[in-house]
Amino acid sequence: MKPDGLESMAAGLACPLPIEEDSIVQLAHGGGGRKTAHLVDSLFLPAFASPALDQLGDGAVFDVGGQRLAFSTDSFVVQPVFFPGGNIGSLAVHGTVNDLAMCGAEPLALSAGFVLEEGFSMDDLRRIVAAMAAASAEAGVPIVTGDTKVVNRGRGDGIYVNTSGIGRVRDGIQVGPDRARPGDAVLVSGPVGDHGIAVMAARSGLEFHTTLLSDSACVLPLVRALLDAAPATRTLRDPTRGGLATALCEIAISSGVGVSLDEDAIPVRREVRAACELLGFDPLYVACEGRFLAVVPAADCEQVLAALRALPDGDAARRIGEITDGTPGRVVLRTGLGSHRRLERLSGEQLPRIC
Amino acid sequence: MKPDGLESMAAGLACPLPIEEDSIVQLAHGGGGRKTAHLVDSLFLPAFASPALDQLGDGAVFDVGGQRLAFSTDSFVVQPVFFPGGNIGSLAVHGTVNDLAMCGAEPLALSAGFVLEEGFSMDDLRRIVAAMAAASAEAGVPIVTGDTKVVNRGRGDGIYVNTSGIGRVRDGIQVGPDRARPGDAVLVSGPVGDHGIAVMAARSGLEFHTTLLSDSACVLPLVRALLDAAPATRTLRDPTRGGLATALCEIAISSGVGVSLDEDAIPVRREVRAACELLGFDPLYVACEGRFLAVVPAADCEQVLAALRALPDGDAARRIGEITDGTPGRVVLRTGLGSHRRLERLSGEQLPRIC
Repeated sequence: MKPDGLESMAAGLACPLPIEEDSIVQLAHGGGGRKTAHLVDSLFLPAFASPALDQLGDGAVFDVGGQRLAFSTDSFVVQPVFFPGGNIGSLAVHGTVNDLAMCGAEPLALSAGFVLEEGFSMDDLRRIVAAMAAASAEAGVPIVTGDTKVVNRGRGDGIYVNTSGIGRVRDGIQVGPDRARPGDAVLVSGPVGDHGIAVMAARSGLEFHTTLLSDSACVLPLVRALLDAAPATRTLRDPTRGGLATALCEIAISSGVGVSLDEDAIPVRREVRAACELLGFDPLYVACEGRFLAVVPAADCEQVLAALRALPDGDAARRIGEITDGTPGRVVLRTGLGSHRRLERLSGEQLPRIC
Repeated sequence: MKPDGLESMAAGLACPLPIEEDSIVQLAHGGGGRKTAHLVDSLFLPAFASPALDQLGDGAVFDVGGQRLAFSTDSFVVQPVFFPGGNIGSLAVHGTVNDLAMCGAEPLALSAGFVLEEGFSMDDLRRIVAAMAAASAEAGVPIVTGDTKVVNRGRGDGIYVNTSGIGRVRDGIQVGPDRARPGDAVLVSGPVGDHGIAVMAARSGLEFHTTLLSDSACVLPLVRALLDAAPATRTLRDPTRGGLATALCEIAISSGVGVSLDEDAIPVRREVRAACELLGFDPLYVACEGRFLAVVPAADCEQVLAALRALPDGDAARRIGEITDGTPGRVVLRTGLGSHRRLERLSGEQLPRIC
């Protein structure tokens, strides 16, 4: 097994600020921001230290008999389990397929692990499983093994789904969060924040309505087109929990570079912007489940955008900024008014149980 | 990908008896017996049909670039999370390592997915993670990727852990639940039922006490010794949920053979037998987490037993019966009194949340 730069990422994620030790688990520990990073750095990484260990985030890459395999796992606890544009089943398939795609891998097989609550509707389970099957067929990645556990009434929340996946990293492709270099271009494959806002809108008790659908989707066709157009792509990352801002902060920290973003270039749907204003959220921190960020050599940027825009889901792909030799780890947003705002990783928990 | 006989196993498990459709999930659907098999056969298998699909039980085997990879997943919801002889963390590592071993594979890497309940003790999490790390180191199988989600207070049960794993099937080894042949010997690697009874004894409200420890352990060293001694081994199976009886019924169904067992030969500790009498359980249906069943050619039986008994955890390995050309799927127990008793798969739920 070879490290693939993952240890350095782990080291890079060590939080530079003192954070109090917590004696109990809080929702923010699952938020994908600072608290999650602290839990990973202080508890999981020291315990599980190994050459192939990734930052317990997207996926690990290691060598098996001369082939580079990618391996990823994700548990899904989204509430509600049915939301506009998808459900926990389709989301679970897209999530792990996309995580493998972010490793530069062609996914080969998925597993499905269910934790069901006693009393959960069998019809709902059937709908969820059908959505998983459809998402698996569409992505071309079979679900080959599984497991079902049932917990007592009141000890779960209907259904939790874990998907894990194996993929084979494409020949000649070497992507990683630590490979961004000054001068590289930063792209996003489509508008951000749709998933988070669609799920929030579906949550009972909220007082706003929207026609917005989750962006939950398989990004494989777009990633294939991107890697064909730019085999020297440095970094791929899906901005799920913690959103675009947190994902870019982690890339900046891991690569030891600065990032300069152009706020006006970041695609955000009007409905997402309106909902965020209503709820007091920043769309740059709202989760997507069918978008990705890419860092590519500047010279490849135009051909990558052309390749993405030629595909149905890629028409809104945009160059949103560049990697700089500024302060390592610092992500700066140039606002429409010409001012600059520093983006930090998500602090606390903006949208619990979004995936 | 090649089927590896898994489809036929799936077909073999189709329940010959009419079972009522259930409209809600019941604890028995997670029990590992008939209800679980019915859920798998009627809901999961039709949806996820693919050449590499296993019976959503132990693991799938498929070809990647000329290598046979094994892939397995398991979610752990055991209550209580700490029990004599282990905890949910060590159990989760042993469980998936053992599932890969049951595929004839050398495990290469594990993933760890946590679903934590808000308010769970960070100290308990630290103990669980330390146990996972120790079990991973002892087995020589690194945890390379992970994921953490947090659910609201009252929507979980402290901690659920999913482990998935990848392994490489040993050269020349071809094991499967459908490969048992009349005349083969049936072995068990040690006494059965320790895990189930140890967990039950740790459950609050129960009125019996025992010094018994769970058998939760990594079976890799024993399996390596067995496969070295008998490369023609037909079937490996760990008798977890549903116990020894259910595991043997499934082998009998998949292989289309009969099984004849000698009750007096099946090792059961005195404490387990006593607790089972007290609780009204049959030890042959109580879960083990560090034992396995093996079907080997009769001619290899003695050298396999010698190889197992030479190892610390294998001293109680026994030949417990043989594969027959009797009614396909029928497992018959010859009792100490000379009578015969048919063993069926676990019906309902004997010991909920044992793993």
